[in-house]
Amino acid sequence: MIKNISLKEIGKKLQDAQSILLFPHENADGDAIGSCVALCLSLREMGKDAFVLVGEEPADFISFITGDCCIGDGSKINNPDICMCVDCGEEKRISGREDKYYSGKIRLTLDHHVTEAGFGDFFYVDENAAATGELVYELLKEMGAEITVPVAEALYVAISTDTGNFKYSNTSPKTHIIAAELMEAGVDHNRIMVELYQNVDIRQLKIRSAAFARAEIFAGGKGAITCVTRRMLEEAGARQEHAETVIDSIRDISGVEIAAVLKERDDNKIKVSLRAKSCGKVNDIAGRFGGGGHVKAAGCTVDMEISEAAEKIKAAITESLALLFGGNE
Amino acid sequence: MIKNISLKEIGKKLQDAQSILLFPHENADGDAIGSCVALCLSLREMGKDAFVLVGEEPADFISFITGDCCIGDGSKINNPDICMCVDCGEEKRISGREDKYYSGKIRLTLDHHVTEAGFGDFFYVDENAAATGELVYELLKEMGAEITVPVAEALYVAISTDTGNFKYSNTSPKTHIIAAELMEAGVDHNRIMVELYQNVDIRQLKIRSAAFARAEIFAGGKGAITCVTRRMLEEAGARQEHAETVIDSIRDISGVEIAAVLKERDDNKIKVSLRAKSCGKVNDIAGRFGGGGHVKAAGCTVDMEISEAAEKIKAAITESLALLFGGNE
Repeated sequence: MIKNISLKEIGKKLQDAQSILLFPHENADGDAIGSCVALCLSLREMGKDAFVLVGEEPADFISFITGDCCIGDGSKINNPDICMCVDCGEEKRISGREDKYYSGKIRLTLDHHVTEAGFGDFFYVDENAAATGELVYELLKEMGAEITVPVAEALYVAISTDTGNFKYSNTSPKTHIIAAELMEAGVDHNRIMVELYQNVDIRQLKIRSAAFARAEIFAGGKGAITCVTRRMLEEAGARQEHAETVIDSIRDISGVEIAAVLKERDDNKIKVSLRAKSCGKVNDIAGRFGGGGHVKAAGCTVDMEISEAAEKIKAAITESLALLFGGNE
Repeated sequence: MIKNISLKEIGKKLQDAQSILLFPHENADGDAIGSCVALCLSLREMGKDAFVLVGEEPADFISFITGDCCIGDGSKINNPDICMCVDCGEEKRISGREDKYYSGKIRLTLDHHVTEAGFGDFFYVDENAAATGELVYELLKEMGAEITVPVAEALYVAISTDTGNFKYSNTSPKTHIIAAELMEAGVDHNRIMVELYQNVDIRQLKIRSAAFARAEIFAGGKGAITCVTRRMLEEAGARQEHAETVIDSIRDISGVEIAAVLKERDDNKIKVSLRAKSCGKVNDIAGRFGGGGHVKAAGCTVDMEISEAAEKIKAAITESLALLFGGNE
């Protein structure tokens, strides 16, 4: 039986423990890694044995904050006093690490994602937090921990990456207040901004250019679609991961409300990314093709020729836009 | 004789006045317009006659906050009690409007740019403020003014645009605290982000793509250069203004420390934009070609063939990088 507890109670349990193993979700992003690393460093400052058990090597862009916190196998801590999922409230997202998680004497979850069913013994979920980094900051304050520079930097990375550096609509007054306090704690703001946002792989720029060149605007300027084929990736010397930001750039075109990018996968299936800007609901569109996601960011995978997929997705977007803006777009 | 005064004293003078004309600098940016509009709206709430006398029609991207504040000729207010330059401390930056400025009974300046010599009667300059929007916010608080939603939105635009949405190194803890307070005052954060950052002219994307395709990386990956020719603009159906953000994208390439973009002007001269990421000093390079600017953002204009200009700029960047990182890059 899972029990909902307060940050204060989580703090108390961590203070009473000696060995703590932290679990970010698989394919960990800046918030998952930043939150785990900040908590790990802070627990070590308190004299505890703490590590972050990752599902895979953290992404390059985040490596400047990880220090020696992240480990790939859990043998450094046997029978941890506490195993704690951070930025992850679903068991399937620690796939391959769940045995280690259940070896913990107490199993906790700290997250800002709403999930249907939690797991472990105790959880704290605040869906109003823009990032789990905000919750870790509040937890550390609750524990009376000193916010050292490396801890502050890991939390700034967590919050910056999960809010698109204060651009996404999850950004709240509290997000800015915590950012101010982290800056007061001494983060090297310029270094973090350079590492996160001025560190773009040239292959990413090349594939973005190629995708722009193929972009088609439709539905009276409110729809935009483009593709990333395997051939385009080959010509740019790029991999699938370099095409991940194409969708945001296409959505950012003036007047566009719904954008789609079709990516040709190695198994010939087409991965479709969808974004809405203001009032569109792309999870509905993705749902019609067996996918899902959030209102403004969703996706699906279809098994057809890329040209056929493009026509079907365009038709679905056009229909959705007609419902929003009227049929004569 | 110009006199340095406090924000409190500026507030007192504004409170004692009935008619106030505000002056942003020419080619007004988001901070100049946002700061002027916020102050104008707030003064009107206090029952004053207030307008913003602009040098030219405000840029499209900012039009969602200007309301009916901006006017192109000063005849709506004769012999204003106060004329006040906002985000502008140099007389040459109100060129064409200086007669109207001097017709004010009291002439004030509120700015965050350091300038050699001010003008008018009284000035307040705080170079530590990330944006003049911060100073207007503090001035309004000093005056006990209510921060209405339109005032808060104009100030959020001012601060967001002048800090690259909290990315530039001028961002301070105070910037975030003011942002938090403006959000608490009720700004429509999502709308502002969409208007400012998801409103990209497709010609801008096309010219950026064309420039990426021509980008050359040199000096062991630490230098990057590209060009925007008139022919490229023609092919993309774009104007010079659509090429303004190319330089930032080129600088953002991983590993690049100094970036340059050469733009072919209508008079055949070449306008060179230069950016440094962390430790480079591009004002030195620009200075060698008769230009100037800031340490991390500078420029110059040269009168030669674009290919010759490219070679000379590349050589200067390579030399500058060799001094920074050693000669064997």
